Amino acid sequence: MASVRVAVIGASGYTGGELLRILALHPHVEVTIATSREHAGKPLHYVHFNLRGFYKGLRFSQLDLDKITRSSDVVFTALPHGVSVNYVPKLLELGFKVVDLSADFRLKNPIDYKTWYGYEHPYPDLLEKAVYGLPELHRGELRGAHLIASPGCNATAAIIALAPQVKAGLIDVDRIIVDIKAGSSEGGSNPTMGSHHPEREGAMRPYEAEGHRHSAEVVQELSSIAGRHVTVSLIPHSVGAVRGVLASAHSWLSRDAGPEDVMRAYLDFYSGEPFIRIVRGAPPGYPDPKYVVGSNFADVGFALEARVRRITGFAAIDNLVKGAAGQAVQAFNIMMGFDEAEGLKMPPFKPV
Amino acid sequence: MASVRVAVIGASGYTGGELLRILALHPHVEVTIATSREHAGKPLHYVHFNLRGFYKGLRFSQLDLDKITRSSDVVFTALPHGVSVNYVPKLLELGFKVVDLSADFRLKNPIDYKTWYGYEHPYPDLLEKAVYGLPELHRGELRGAHLIASPGCNATAAIIALAPQVKAGLIDVDRIIVDIKAGSSEGGSNPTMGSHHPEREGAMRPYEAEGHRHSAEVVQELSSIAGRHVTVSLIPHSVGAVRGVLASAHSWLSRDAGPEDVMRAYLDFYSGEPFIRIVRGAPPGYPDPKYVVGSNFADVGFALEARVRRITGFAAIDNLVKGAAGQAVQAFNIMMGFDEAEGLKMPPFKPV
Amino acid sequence: MASVRVAVIGASGYTGGELLRILALHPHVEVTIATSREHAGKPLHYVHFNLRGFYKGLRFSQLDLDKITRSSDVVFTALPHGVSVNYVPKLLELGFKVVDLSADFRLKNPIDYKTWYGYEHPYPDLLEKAVYGLPELHRGELRGAHLIASPGCNATAAIIALAPQVKAGLIDVDRIIVDIKAGSSEGGSNPTMGSHHPEREGAMRPYEAEGHRHSAEVVQELSSIAGRHVTVSLIPHSVGAVRGVLASAHSWLSRDAGPEDVMRAYLDFYSGEPFIRIVRGAPPGYPDPKYVVGSNFADVGFALEARVRRITGFAAIDNLVKGAAGQAVQAFNIMMGFDEAEGLKMPPFKPV
Amino acid sequence: MASVRVAVIGASGYTGGELLRILALHPHVEVTIATSREHAGKPLHYVHFNLRGFYKGLRFSQLDLDKITRSSDVVFTALPHGVSVNYVPKLLELGFKVVDLSADFRLKNPIDYKTWYGYEHPYPDLLEKAVYGLPELHRGELRGAHLIASPGCNATAAIIALAPQVKAGLIDVDRIIVDIKAGSSEGGSNPTMGSHHPEREGAMRPYEAEGHRHSAEVVQELSSIAGRHVTVSLIPHSVGAVRGVLASAHSWLSRDAGPEDVMRAYLDFYSGEPFIRIVRGAPPGYPDPKYVVGSNFADVGFALEARVRRITGFAAIDNLVKGAAGQAVQAFNIMMGFDEAEGLKMPPFKPV
Repeated sequence: MASVRVAVIGASGYTGGELLRILALHPHVEVTIATSREHAGKPLHYVHFNLRGFYKGLRFSQLDLDKITRSSDVVFTALPHGVSVNYVPKLLELGFKVVDLSADFRLKNPIDYKTWYGYEHPYPDLLEKAVYGLPELHRGELRGAHLIASPGCNATAAIIALAPQVKAGLIDVDRIIVDIKAGSSEGGSNPTMGSHHPEREGAMRPYEAEGHRHSAEVVQELSSIAGRHVTVSLIPHSVGAVRGVLASAHSWLSRDAGPEDVMRAYLDFYSGEPFIRIVRGAPPGYPDPKYVVGSNFADVGFALEARVRRITGFAAIDNLVKGAAGQAVQAFNIMMGFDEAEGLKMPPFKPV
Repeated sequence: MASVRVAVIGASGYTGGELLRILALHPHVEVTIATSREHAGKPLHYVHFNLRGFYKGLRFSQLDLDKITRSSDVVFTALPHGVSVNYVPKLLELGFKVVDLSADFRLKNPIDYKTWYGYEHPYPDLLEKAVYGLPELHRGELRGAHLIASPGCNATAAIIALAPQVKAGLIDVDRIIVDIKAGSSEGGSNPTMGSHHPEREGAMRPYEAEGHRHSAEVVQELSSIAGRHVTVSLIPHSVGAVRGVLASAHSWLSRDAGPEDVMRAYLDFYSGEPFIRIVRGAPPGYPDPKYVVGSNFADVGFALEARVRRITGFAAIDNLVKGAAGQAVQAFNIMMGFDEAEGLKMPPFKPV
Repeated sequence: MASVRVAVIGASGYTGGELLRILALHPHVEVTIATSREHAGKPLHYVHFNLRGFYKGLRFSQLDLDKITRSSDVVFTALPHGVSVNYVPKLLELGFKVVDLSADFRLKNPIDYKTWYGYEHPYPDLLEKAVYGLPELHRGELRGAHLIASPGCNATAAIIALAPQVKAGLIDVDRIIVDIKAGSSEGGSNPTMGSHHPEREGAMRPYEAEGHRHSAEVVQELSSIAGRHVTVSLIPHSVGAVRGVLASAHSWLSRDAGPEDVMRAYLDFYSGEPFIRIVRGAPPGYPDPKYVVGSNFADVGFALEARVRRITGFAAIDNLVKGAAGQAVQAFNIMMGFDEAEGLKMPPFKPV
Repeated sequence: MASVRVAVIGASGYTGGELLRILALHPHVEVTIATSREHAGKPLHYVHFNLRGFYKGLRFSQLDLDKITRSSDVVFTALPHGVSVNYVPKLLELGFKVVDLSADFRLKNPIDYKTWYGYEHPYPDLLEKAVYGLPELHRGELRGAHLIASPGCNATAAIIALAPQVKAGLIDVDRIIVDIKAGSSEGGSNPTMGSHHPEREGAMRPYEAEGHRHSAEVVQELSSIAGRHVTVSLIPHSVGAVRGVLASAHSWLSRDAGPEDVMRAYLDFYSGEPFIRIVRGAPPGYPDPKYVVGSNFADVGFALEARVRRITGFAAIDNLVKGAAGQAVQAFNIMMGFDEAEGLKMPPFKPV
């Protein structure tokens, strides 16, 4: 099978680096362009120390649409929110298939961009065409997609934890609280006082606690499953780890249900999914992102406190893989007709 | 002022060690006995490496009630749940004032011991006499106490986070979920596979997720404030830190209220409290246990997601200090008529 | 190419788990047996949580030579020192090729076992036949090997850091001190007080500081390169990480030499090596095991303090990969005539 | 005893913050001024979150010599190297006693400033008058001092580890290598890519590996003890911790000596020292900075590899306490005639 030539725009951040790591061994991909405004001209390993010895002929370059047109077939955009929206429409016009890892095309309702991201979305038509890149929900649409809007990491964990419960009608969808724990790599590669090691190590620190942007994606996707509006409140916390997101999605049972009912809901929903693993009973008892690090797996599970009818759905992912670059490649594989797991077959690491 | 002679029973664990650390500089205390079945005969620093150079004449000894009677005035018991209950009644009979750090005397209703701890409580009368050692709620009763039941660490954080909201009638008390993040020292000093460094470092791992024992204390204390039964579901998570507990207490507003109303509830409730600090607005924005490590402070705060009327109360403590030994000394100081802050005046450390 | 059927003896520890992780995707290997005395009968993911979803038909089994004979071609032994020696001779007799990850066949001189490991080696003849499995030194011999003695993790780092300097005659080989920093996974999967998270996190702790067992391997291999006896003193320290070993090999120049001379020594020695990367000048400046985690790479480099003629060679490895399972697979690949990098092609992770 | 009024210049960094933490409870000190160019006007707890509730009337102010003159008796300068030198002479002229925590007055030989810090020292006469603030070496001189040059953290650890060996003539002083492991707080409070949590956590990373500035102090002090020039090569490594420095000072015995000889050297040298603790034999076996965190103690010890006559002296300190602010207060106490341990009596924390 001939290789697909891939350009990665915004290749110097953590998401860009993780894309490069995964694509390095993808049998049907050749990365031809990796752009970085700041590091143009430097070898990739000046930033991504792990990639020393890989991509020997490739250096960071400035974004140049002509050059991309000549040398690429598909474009991954790993740009900040509000920046992607300036490039993706042109790339689509030029005929590229695009996998966008920003939030700029994830939401269907243009008003949500005003509410959550503070800007008027200039391409509402593209919002309709974009496919939300969560294969467990949108595999069919991904097959013919031209624009994939790859989900946020916290949103991925929240949706994966809750979708089976919502689908099965188990919970009161008016009162869902998703308490998220996240490692430091989620904050990106830019040093700040909050990410300064002496301040960040061992932290347990709420952030965006009065309205987290990923809420919009979660509400959109779960409402679609529920067939009605669901109310979800997300609240993330920075905790002491580099990689990993755990979503603890708390709600209250809406009808009598025991552990076996909940289990059935998960088994039904995720039957045949290549990257979902259900953790229940066997050690370590509940999902822990520690045991998916380095992989595209989402470990899911749940806890039921029967005494008070509280139910918690858990999803544990590696924020840079299933929460970003890995999921983007998974969706890309589907879009291109490749084996969905291509480039993503490695087991997680333990211990790490 | 003459020194009070103190015996620490169960002095080789983390709580016992922290008591010894704090009492080492308490101006009105002389520790005369430190018992440890396993380490009897050894100097304290064989276990508590930090105490090298302190307590030079003291070694761990076997528990010997006669010896304690001859040499002590007050006893701190830092024994496991279900063990304390065998010693405390005898100590009270012998005329000691006792500060018990186990759960064995925290609950007023004997049935709760059957439900949560799996044993029939043999001394229901003592449950009535014991004072729950949270000074912010029971300062008056502590003054004349003979038996202090020092609160659990997770319970302390949960109650401190929620009490002002409950008192002010701000929230729906039928649907409270307390999501707890805790450092590894909370699990005690006994090595297990779950505490093995390669497995524990960077974890985000739910435990006792279907009914956490500290729930009983929290329900008891908050119901007392509310004047009616409240429903609280606690769910703890092990996260990557050694010290620290953060309680994120999620619920839904029961009436219209803005941030200033919530703030007023906290200010009113904690006015004049020596160890409560309210974190709001100023950096770091929300409480983080990292910034109380080494101290008896509880940093409290809240987040209000007005859009969906979700409110979260936060409390951040050092689990070994305000969550255990420090709070026990604070209650002891009140009981003995000392300055409440004696031995506990140090600011936290930053960074650590 | 037909698959080689592989048995892993001692498959429940960290080294065994890492072998299983690597071999899971090895295109020419089928793992048919994974033994564990303690966990026989359980699925692999009861211990190796990361492997959930892999090796679906395989469970831990008791060691049974008949069964191994029927179902395997090559055996990896990941047993403790002093235990391997009881099984390897039988396996060789039965005609297996064996890759042994213990220390039991690494040393050529039987007396060294008495000195360093405290036992009389019962098979001195096998010591002669065993090939020390460091491909950078023994690739040729590995090709026809029947018994590979896979190197220790600290020894691997020390030898790789020093070999080019010794070969080039740059240093005083009578006064070499290798200061080693190691992550907690080096201590294995058995919980102890020293590995208890509250005690281990953030440690900087010397161990085996008066004679580290890996010294014998290092002296053996470097003396062989030098053509004379070299004196090396190893001193390891536990530091705050899960994976990773850094060897800082300090010595004094024996002749005038500048950075370019040292660089040439490294370039010459490691020319063409698939898993050696030289870090010098470019960021991060010196090797750091953090940037090889999850891979079989050894990053090497050096520092020269001209003022006092002190030279330090650095080697950074993932102790479970290049320091154990990865290197064993690399040597196995060579022995079997496979592509040396088979199963080991993944770049490291960053950040992790 | 009347309070000494203290000004802290450069109070917003980690060293300044630690000074404020220690002085908050010093019975003979009142902090009247805390300067910070960047944070002038803000309450101290805007930067030092731990100090919330302390120093209620005090805010950061701009450096103003008139104001300092009116309100202070003693000045601590916690400014960067090369900045202190601009203020200290004026402060001395105005009659202040000064404790300077920079490197600007540590070295006796002006040429060393050219060599190691790259500037011509403008006040060589003050270098003579400054007292190097290591009480274990210069207690007598500190009593009458007007200018204390407080030692560097790595230098403190290196000197404390080696002084007894040098004094007793045990080692070859021409070949000493001090391998240092340091936590992230050593790098100060300014975020950089190297201190970014995802990059820094779990690191084992050499820095300033071809000539570390603290070498000059170490050579100066040890040469003074030896009565001849000693050659010391320092090489620091960043490891995974926030607080703590471990110096592993490697050298070779210059004469026959056993562990008891070395022990005697340490006992003799440190007899009566209030902040030195010798760790040998008893657990944890060797000094580990983890067990001095939060205190002014230096835990010292050694390892002797008799086989090759290699000896390693260890010193473990909290870099912000004995390595900076604590040692500065200790020296200040001596200078002022206070109890040397005033404000520094707390035991370390364990676990932390």
